[in-house]
This record gives sequence, C-alpha cells and structure tokens, in this order.
Amino acid sequence: MWGIIGTWEMAYAGIEKGAEILSSQGHVFDAVEACVRSVEDCPEFTSIDYGGLPNAAGVVEMDAAFMDGETLSIGAVAAIRDFANPCAIARKLMSERLNNFLVGPGAEEYGLRHGFARKNMLTAKSQSVWLEHKDKVDRQELRPYIGHDTVCAVGLDHTGHMAACTSTSGLFYKLPGRVGDSPLPGCGYYADNAIGGACATGLGEDIMKGALCFQIVHLMGQGLSPQQACAKAVKALNDRLVSRRGKAGDLSAIAMNAQGDFGAATNIEAFPFVVATEKHPIAIYVAGKGKDSVKKV
Amino acid sequence: MWGIIGTWEMAYAGIEKGAEILSSQGHVFDAVEACVRSVEDCPEFTSIDYGGLPNAAGVVEMDAAFMDGETLSIGAVAAIRDFANPCAIARKLMSERLNNFLVGPGAEEYGLRHGFARKNMLTAKSQSVWLEHKDKVDRQELRPYIGHDTVCAVGLDHTGHMAACTSTSGLFYKLPGRVGDSPLPGCGYYADNAIGGACATGLGEDIMKGALCFQIVHLMGQGLSPQQACAKAVKALNDRLVSRRGKAGDLSAIAMNAQGDFGAATNIEAFPFVVATEKHPIAIYVAGKGKDSVKKV
Repeated sequence: MWGIIGTWEMAYAGIEKGAEILSSQGHVFDAVEACVRSVEDCPEFTSIDYGGLPNAAGVVEMDAAFMDGETLSIGAVAAIRDFANPCAIARKLMSERLNNFLVGPGAEEYGLRHGFARKNMLTAKSQSVWLEHKDKVDRQELRPYIGHDTVCAVGLDHTGHMAACTSTSGLFYKLPGRVGDSPLPGCGYYADNAIGGACATGLGEDIMKGALCFQIVHLMGQGLSPQQACAKAVKALNDRLVSRRGKAGDLSAIAMNAQGDFGAATNIEAFPFVVATEKHPIAIYVAGKGKDSVKKV
Repeated sequence: MWGIIGTWEMAYAGIEKGAEILSSQGHVFDAVEACVRSVEDCPEFTSIDYGGLPNAAGVVEMDAAFMDGETLSIGAVAAIRDFANPCAIARKLMSERLNNFLVGPGAEEYGLRHGFARKNMLTAKSQSVWLEHKDKVDRQELRPYIGHDTVCAVGLDHTGHMAACTSTSGLFYKLPGRVGDSPLPGCGYYADNAIGGACATGLGEDIMKGALCFQIVHLMGQGLSPQQACAKAVKALNDRLVSRRGKAGDLSAIAMNAQGDFGAATNIEAFPFVVATEKHPIAIYVAGKGKDSVKKV
C-alpha cells in the first residue's frame, strides 16, 4: 500500500508527482519532497515561498520541516531567506546527528555550505501586492494579517515508511523573524511509521497552542481512524481556544495512517485537500466546518 | 494553594524568589519570571544565558519561552543574542495578538523596540572554556557537544493561575541558529490551568521528537499524578527512541498539577530539581533513572 495527502488544491500537481514516485516503488522522502517542492516553486501561490507574500519589512521569510516516521528524526528551518527550496534544506538537516532545527542567518549559512540553490523569492507580483497592502495598513484601512496557507504532505511508501513535510512563507505581513507552526514538531506536523502522520495549516499562533498534529497521531495510535482523529483533535482545540480566548483562529489538518487510510478536518467553511493512494486515484476532497466526514469534489 | 518547581539545583535561589512572590499572593507570571531571571543573570551557570557557553562561532545564542495556562498564550524567542533576560522578552511576546514566536535578528529588533536591556552575555570564563574546547575539537580529541541544561519553572498561584517558563543558551558548541526544545511549545514546556504544567531539560533534538511536555500534561488530564505522568511519558519516549534509533539522549522533566502536587522523571542517573509549595517548604529533590518516585535531598 502507498498513499500521499496534501493540503489545499494547490497541492494537486505536487500530489501527482508524489503519487508517480510512490506507485513506482519510490521512497517516501522523495515523494513528499517532490510534492512540496512543486508548490514552493510555483509563483502563483502567494502564501508559499516563491511568489509568497513578504513580511512587514518586505522580505520573504520561509519556514519548512521534514519528519521521518521511522527514526522520528526531524529537520526544520525557520525565518530563512533567499533559498529556492526550504523543504530540501529541512530534509538534509533531518540527516544530521544534532543541530536539526536552524533559524535565520544560521540556517542560511548551512544552506550555502551544503550547496542549496539560492533564489530571490520575491516576485514582481507579490511585491506589488505588498506595496498596496502596506499602503492600506499605513492608512489603517486594513488589519495587517491575512493569508497563512501552508503546503504540507504526508506520505506512505510500499515499504511502510512514512514521512511528513511542510513549507510556507507564513503569515502575510508578519514581523521579521516570526515563526509559525509549520517548522514546529508536533504542532505543524508529526509522523510515526507505527501509527501514521498528520500536518496542519491555518493560524500558526493558535495551532501551536495545542500540539495539534502530535495529538492527531496520538489519537490514531489509540485506534481512531485518520478521519475520526482529525475531527476530534480539531474540535477539541477549537473548543478549548474558544472557551479560553473567546475565539479560535483557522485550524485545518490532514492525516494518513500506516494502512493508507486518510482523513481531514477544519474549523473553516471549506478546506480542500488532495489525496492519491494505491486504492484511490488522485482527487480533490473538501472538509467542512465541524464535519465528521469529507466529500470528494 | 500555590507552588513552584524548577529544574536543577541551580534553580534554588530562583525558586526561593518565586515562592516569596507566590506566598505573598503574587502573580504566577512574576514568580516564574523571577525564578528564571535569577538563573539567567548568574554567571556561574555555564549552560544558561549570562556566562552560558557559546556556539561554534563563539557567540552566546539563547532560547526562551513563556506559556500562560489560562489563555494558552505562548511567547518565545530563539537564537537571540545580546539580551540580558530572554524570558522577559518571551513574556512580552506572549501578550501580542500574533507574532508570538520570533527568532534571530527579528527577535532582537523586537527586544530593542520594546526597551529590553542589552548585555554582552559572553563572560571571560565562558570564553576561555570555549577556546580550550575549540582547540580540543579542532584536534579531534573531543566530541563537540556537551552540556545542555535548561532552567525551567512551572508555577501555580493562589488564584489557580498556572504558567511555564524556560531559558537556555542551549547545546555547547551548537551551530549558529540552532534551536532546541526550550522555545518549542509542547516539547520544552506546556501549561493549562485546567490540568497542570510541565517543563523539560536534556537533549533538545530528542525531546522534540515526542512532544514530551504536551504528553505529560495530557496524561495528567487523564487522571495521572504529576509523578506518574512524568514517569510514564519519559519512559515511553526513551523506549521509542531506543527502539527506533538504538539510543536516547538525556530526557528529564518536571510537572505540577492544578492542585500543587508535583513530580519529575529522568533517563539519566540523577536529575535534581527544586520545589516550594504552600504545603512543602523549599527543598531539593532528585529523580533517578527509570524511577517512579523522587527523593528529597
């Protein structure tokens, strides 16, 4: 059995690439990386890396992570600038004995030292969106923060090996150095071959208050299906945030277990995601607010 | 009921200060901050902040975090240089609506903008230890990484408010930009008024593979005592790491629940910690490898 699941419709082309690798008995690391890279490289997606919307200083800063479900090894970068594929640097960091999570200039030094491709991630389009937005924020016509979609993928290869990978340029107009949930283990992602994997997208500042992905994997470990685990964990965190803070930011999550079953849940109106497995040809599905099941589009 | 618990014997003077605040009906944020600051400021402790051992580039870079058990708000900094009290910056970040976790130069800009005291954190003593160590590493007489103690405190005030706070200069000789578990929510710390709080110290790269503190609080939420929860979570993570990787790094954790009961567990020979509560005068305790109980010293 093999399978791969990714967040948002933008993951479609990436999931196609990942599925091709997995169906040819390829390695799960290559599959989830191919999926996430394909979104990182696309200038059309304004919340991810190349073409991603910049921070308050007008600079694109990115967060990414990789987790190996077999060894539980983690690799992550945060607030990194000017690299084409942060997820590839995270994968390399995952292979190190220590120093697996690097941020800022230290992460960039590491990327340079290991020959990763540099790239100016700011496109003319995202710069012009930024300038227009800055103008409105300066005139107090707009709240500064909108947009925080993350590309994430969870994969399972024919050997039973699982992995999770995330990448994002984070909250539009964030402060320089701001880190969201995407590079944080247990918050934005988690994977364990013995159980399954999960990834999250939404308001990082709220996702990290409840270790959302660790909790989803933990629930799958207690026998819940990926769908039940996502629904239960998203609802529980949403309800805790509402009861303690009066409101909850956007929370969406995807999961796949070691048998290739999948699921997703959200507290927003509609959260689309893409899945391909040995049993299910590639398709877009949508999770709805508070729903216990998902629909194929 | 009030109580405060902190990691390592070095927390003694800080726990005294925290207990004084809590016994005078002070706020839990002030108590845990006073505790952690007292260790941050002390040049004798070579793993924490002032006098902390520098990274491979000879620079002291620090990680710190704060969590509010009432609102679940988090504030955190990582890889921050030249500030006297990273835990105070983390506390301020906890009060922000967004951008709660800042790293590197962005975290420093924030600290400057909010008037936090700058300080060269490298002492003559720690520089000379670094030079000697560098020399041995260069001659391959020594493995580069030793020392990774973190000061952490969990507190409960007379209103039932709980908080957790961590601070560290991290792994000696770490790469620039390296982030450990201490600023990562659910990994190095977690707190929830309805249940309790936990903090961890040890090898950050391994602690973050199992969301150790989130798991401890989760277990307390299922009815386990802080002692049972720490013992079960530390053992479970240690065993998973050994089975998947052949070995586990140092893992130690402390916890206190909303009733002021406390506990700790470790996979090293002896892990000392300090506690003071309304019922128990300040004392040093020691947790031993794989033990289900702790001993007063």
